Amino acid sequence: MSSQKINVGIVGGTGYTGVELIRLLSQHPQAQLTLLTSRSEMGRRVDDMFPSLRGVSDLVFSDLDETELSNCDVVFFATPHGVAMQHAKFLTENHTKVIDLAADFRLKNVATFEKWYKMPHACPDILANSVYGLSEINREKIATAQVVGNPGCYPTTVELGLTPLLKHKLLAENTSIIIDAKSGVSGAGRKAELGSLYSEVADSLKAYGMAGHRHHPEIVETLTHISNHSINLDNLIFVPHLVPMIRGMLSTIYVDLNEQGKATDIQRLYEDFYQQEYFIDVMPHGSSPDTRSVRGSNRLRIALTTQGDKLIILVAQDNLVKGAAGQAVQNMNIMFGLDETTGLKIVPIVP
Amino acid sequence: MSSQKINVGIVGGTGYTGVELIRLLSQHPQAQLTLLTSRSEMGRRVDDMFPSLRGVSDLVFSDLDETELSNCDVVFFATPHGVAMQHAKFLTENHTKVIDLAADFRLKNVATFEKWYKMPHACPDILANSVYGLSEINREKIATAQVVGNPGCYPTTVELGLTPLLKHKLLAENTSIIIDAKSGVSGAGRKAELGSLYSEVADSLKAYGMAGHRHHPEIVETLTHISNHSINLDNLIFVPHLVPMIRGMLSTIYVDLNEQGKATDIQRLYEDFYQQEYFIDVMPHGSSPDTRSVRGSNRLRIALTTQGDKLIILVAQDNLVKGAAGQAVQNMNIMFGLDETTGLKIVPIVP
Amino acid sequence: MSSQKINVGIVGGTGYTGVELIRLLSQHPQAQLTLLTSRSEMGRRVDDMFPSLRGVSDLVFSDLDETELSNCDVVFFATPHGVAMQHAKFLTENHTKVIDLAADFRLKNVATFEKWYKMPHACPDILANSVYGLSEINREKIATAQVVGNPGCYPTTVELGLTPLLKHKLLAENTSIIIDAKSGVSGAGRKAELGSLYSEVADSLKAYGMAGHRHHPEIVETLTHISNHSINLDNLIFVPHLVPMIRGMLSTIYVDLNEQGKATDIQRLYEDFYQQEYFIDVMPHGSSPDTRSVRGSNRLRIALTTQGDKLIILVAQDNLVKGAAGQAVQNMNIMFGLDETTGLKIVPIVP
Amino acid sequence: MSSQKINVGIVGGTGYTGVELIRLLSQHPQAQLTLLTSRSEMGRRVDDMFPSLRGVSDLVFSDLDETELSNCDVVFFATPHGVAMQHAKFLTENHTKVIDLAADFRLKNVATFEKWYKMPHACPDILANSVYGLSEINREKIATAQVVGNPGCYPTTVELGLTPLLKHKLLAENTSIIIDAKSGVSGAGRKAELGSLYSEVADSLKAYGMAGHRHHPEIVETLTHISNHSINLDNLIFVPHLVPMIRGMLSTIYVDLNEQGKATDIQRLYEDFYQQEYFIDVMPHGSSPDTRSVRGSNRLRIALTTQGDKLIILVAQDNLVKGAAGQAVQNMNIMFGLDETTGLKIVPIVP
Repeated sequence: MSSQKINVGIVGGTGYTGVELIRLLSQHPQAQLTLLTSRSEMGRRVDDMFPSLRGVSDLVFSDLDETELSNCDVVFFATPHGVAMQHAKFLTENHTKVIDLAADFRLKNVATFEKWYKMPHACPDILANSVYGLSEINREKIATAQVVGNPGCYPTTVELGLTPLLKHKLLAENTSIIIDAKSGVSGAGRKAELGSLYSEVADSLKAYGMAGHRHHPEIVETLTHISNHSINLDNLIFVPHLVPMIRGMLSTIYVDLNEQGKATDIQRLYEDFYQQEYFIDVMPHGSSPDTRSVRGSNRLRIALTTQGDKLIILVAQDNLVKGAAGQAVQNMNIMFGLDETTGLKIVPIVP
Repeated sequence: MSSQKINVGIVGGTGYTGVELIRLLSQHPQAQLTLLTSRSEMGRRVDDMFPSLRGVSDLVFSDLDETELSNCDVVFFATPHGVAMQHAKFLTENHTKVIDLAADFRLKNVATFEKWYKMPHACPDILANSVYGLSEINREKIATAQVVGNPGCYPTTVELGLTPLLKHKLLAENTSIIIDAKSGVSGAGRKAELGSLYSEVADSLKAYGMAGHRHHPEIVETLTHISNHSINLDNLIFVPHLVPMIRGMLSTIYVDLNEQGKATDIQRLYEDFYQQEYFIDVMPHGSSPDTRSVRGSNRLRIALTTQGDKLIILVAQDNLVKGAAGQAVQNMNIMFGLDETTGLKIVPIVP
Repeated sequence: MSSQKINVGIVGGTGYTGVELIRLLSQHPQAQLTLLTSRSEMGRRVDDMFPSLRGVSDLVFSDLDETELSNCDVVFFATPHGVAMQHAKFLTENHTKVIDLAADFRLKNVATFEKWYKMPHACPDILANSVYGLSEINREKIATAQVVGNPGCYPTTVELGLTPLLKHKLLAENTSIIIDAKSGVSGAGRKAELGSLYSEVADSLKAYGMAGHRHHPEIVETLTHISNHSINLDNLIFVPHLVPMIRGMLSTIYVDLNEQGKATDIQRLYEDFYQQEYFIDVMPHGSSPDTRSVRGSNRLRIALTTQGDKLIILVAQDNLVKGAAGQAVQNMNIMFGLDETTGLKIVPIVP
Repeated sequence: MSSQKINVGIVGGTGYTGVELIRLLSQHPQAQLTLLTSRSEMGRRVDDMFPSLRGVSDLVFSDLDETELSNCDVVFFATPHGVAMQHAKFLTENHTKVIDLAADFRLKNVATFEKWYKMPHACPDILANSVYGLSEINREKIATAQVVGNPGCYPTTVELGLTPLLKHKLLAENTSIIIDAKSGVSGAGRKAELGSLYSEVADSLKAYGMAGHRHHPEIVETLTHISNHSINLDNLIFVPHLVPMIRGMLSTIYVDLNEQGKATDIQRLYEDFYQQEYFIDVMPHGSSPDTRSVRGSNRLRIALTTQGDKLIILVAQDNLVKGAAGQAVQNMNIMFGLDETTGLKIVPIVP
């Protein structure tokens, strides 16, 4: 790595993943954030919108200009679904890498994308060559990717929580995979919506997305790939819940093991599988990770326990970091040949 | 019912179920709270401890005196486990009914009780004649009971959520029953413990009780009774989670139906089953009850949905009301021949 | 009072004061809520919008129709500012009383109203005859009023907190009156605004309204009336703060007493002044009311303390009850000759 | 500064200031935390107690051993009041610097200390030579101090908020100084106390310390020093409030200016006064800092506004960082000749 810093742009830095990207990149020794675009906030200083950035960044939101963006080495899209795919062709043709934090490059199956996101895909050819940015699993492909689709927050927990079992084919045939997932409210984004008001969600709890959640097909597609098509996922059940906290995500996953799985020391298997991974912490058997133990950091903690015939996998992360901006920066590090932890060795904030 | 009010005593009114009992009984037109005991707070006015009761109650905590208690028509025990069973014999012999909000009269199996609560049972004979106070299911027995063991908070949601299926034998043989349960912090009681501090639980979430939770055997025993021993509960999985909210409980239950169940209109079945129940609300199919929709009230809301082969049952209640003090007052109403809703038609507080 | 119930309508029952009115009126033995209007939600069941009302109300939102409204005995306006004044003339001419929970009838000075609310007043003549609904202070006028302007939430705390001093002329000449006020987020209403999102206000605190708050002139005008123009209020300072809680309001008021005031037993004075008031609780000297001690109830608690030369007055209420819907129902009771506490003897919810 | 790292010990790393010190020191490039003591947790790994530190620190709590401590270059005392003063003599004699985060070295007046903390002072001689660690104001003395008394959290906001006025003698003679202060719950420490339980403080708000708060004399003594005894502080009023948030502190300060003050551009004065200070942000006039804008960082933000004759000074900080552990590390940097911002350029976490 030369001493020259990576020149970074962010499209849409007004949401929670945007401001989190700015926080992480501001503390990154090898990246320089130079361009920040927002149509609605054009001309406004970012530290006027987010006073937490006073003294940190004096950037001003500009209009989205593809040419200017193409001067960056990499552009993060912290936008609604459907924006990154409009610009990926131009940017990659101009040798600017793209990391999309929305869903444009998560689902390889175009029909699935179009069904769940209700828009035609603008660049199926680029989609075909893009890489799903699950850093620990797809590291090699990410290293050479021009376009990375950063995983959804829920999928990150589920996929990292199940990969060791899938890779070793230890799940029972036709097991149900029940994912009872819980997220803090920041996962809903920084949008003025009734359902995200303080007085609507505080001191309360509910399941949501009963009619189906877009992360369901993403999980199914990715697990299918990871398992090399060896598993039937018709009984993958996904029920997300909204929890009155700002950040934090916990997935409680219930699965059945096959005979080989029952005969395996699963705890040991997970510890071995993730031994080299700085960001993945396999806790002692029977532990329970609380979401604050990763608050503000890129760590993801896994704990295993058993009850009856079920293996229960608990996976905790900060939805805005490992579940979004942190993994995106981790992917940037991989794409630019940096140590993967550069700028990301942040100690969680407790209490 | 004569116009004379029920003379009520509370043992241990210093915890959250205690103060909730006082709130409910203060607004109950047929009950008169006359005696409040607490060893640690003897001589202190209850409204000094709970200023919310200023202008509501001028009672003073007294020492526990069995003779005084026996002047009451009914005594609620809002105490730690193991207290009510010390006094039940004397009180019932003196024609005072007992409603225990702790666990002394929940488990009929003495060995199970002693294993999980780590104390010998003081009165197995009275236990044998006591009634498990799941109001809607055991109404007839409660009506004539001298001693009622008020159900645990989690068990109330699970048992009412599953009873229609069990009574109609619609669960698949050897189905797993996965109960992913979530509770507000008041469920841990009003005890000075590190784990319940604001700064420990706010803005965070975790599973707990990984080594086994006392409500697990209570659920198993009760469902066994309700199903008339027709079901194998070895694969009943129970994982409680601690949610940063004061009140509120949601159980998300995942089950498999048998062939008959799959052929049944389950939504209709639940609506019919609970049609006459004032406190049980079967919401439209695919709904999702939020816990605030029952805050402060004795309602319990159930919603059903399906995903893959699974039936998902969502059950919400206020853990301190239907999950504790409210159901206890409901049981008192039944035991004294009152309309079951007397004093309990409270509209939930939203927001 | 005849046994016939008061026929009540609510215009704009979709906000937090609206749903709170519904909660209170549903439990009111002498009122019958028969009409609920909302342009945006016309045709929708109120319990579909607020599932907490399932089993409580089966009303359907209708369009605002003056003739239908005029069939009611009283109409509450839980609307934005400027709506009630459009309909007050028609309704009062048709013998329907009006209670406005917005600001149309709070400020007697039309110029002040028009300056702060940036709209012309539609009916200055009716305004002139309307009564400011500070129940405990204006009780006699409210009893015969056709139109009541329900006080703002902050003003209620400040005015009830200072009235005894003003009536007895105990404040120092030219004293500053510093009102450091704090409110829960529900005070901002049920509007989809960025600033009220959970992730914006949770786990944070700030002052707001630095450029001036509309409750400032309301407080000044009312205190001027209460003091019979005996006091200079140029140095009345009002700084509201937004606190991460749903309900609850606390005003911390700092004043200087004159010589007579210093020679007076102020604690005794307050206790005597409010001795007959069910809803006003003067706590022991040196106490500190927490807002939860009034949660869900129409109580307002006052505590006095001194530091240096300052008298410090702490006033706590539930902003949605005594600060809005509860005081409105209290005013209805007064207007219809009912016992003022009818339907309002609600015990606060703790915890 | 040589390349050798500062060898750091922490006495009492089990509370919130302790774990915060560990977080900050773990990310400090010039410090090495080598010793962590706790009598109650001796032998336990710190990352077992705080799983957020898994992968960050593998230290084990040891018993407090003065000789071992004296091998450190500096020892932080994150203990209850009264501990540091027992060890300061031994440590300083052995050339180990001491930074006490409790109150042992805050008050120079021994009688005042003994009155408020109800214990005799163990080393008045060392106290006399210790330095009050208000970094920006006492920087030069801190640089050569052997013992630093780290300021209380509230005093830090008040003192930094008022220093420009005091240094320029712009306060009115006999002005009242009203400090309406608000703190998150972590300020109460990590102690198992009823009053800090989630269900006691969530969704509520109250003033506390009505009988007098220990930070009051600290503020008075320090402001007296800063003002060079030029001001009468009999009318310094301090009312702290407990706010349902984990971290964060806001002081709203009301003062009167003298004629010179009224003629001064106070905004400009503050901006100039703190222009060189990395950690102090003077926001535009009329702004309002929210506490989350400094969450997790060592920044303190000040905003000024006027109402009537009053100048209102809003001061926000993270009580655990600038109000405790952050300022302590800042002081360590000063004491060891490092750039004051070393290890402390942390971007606040929003949302």
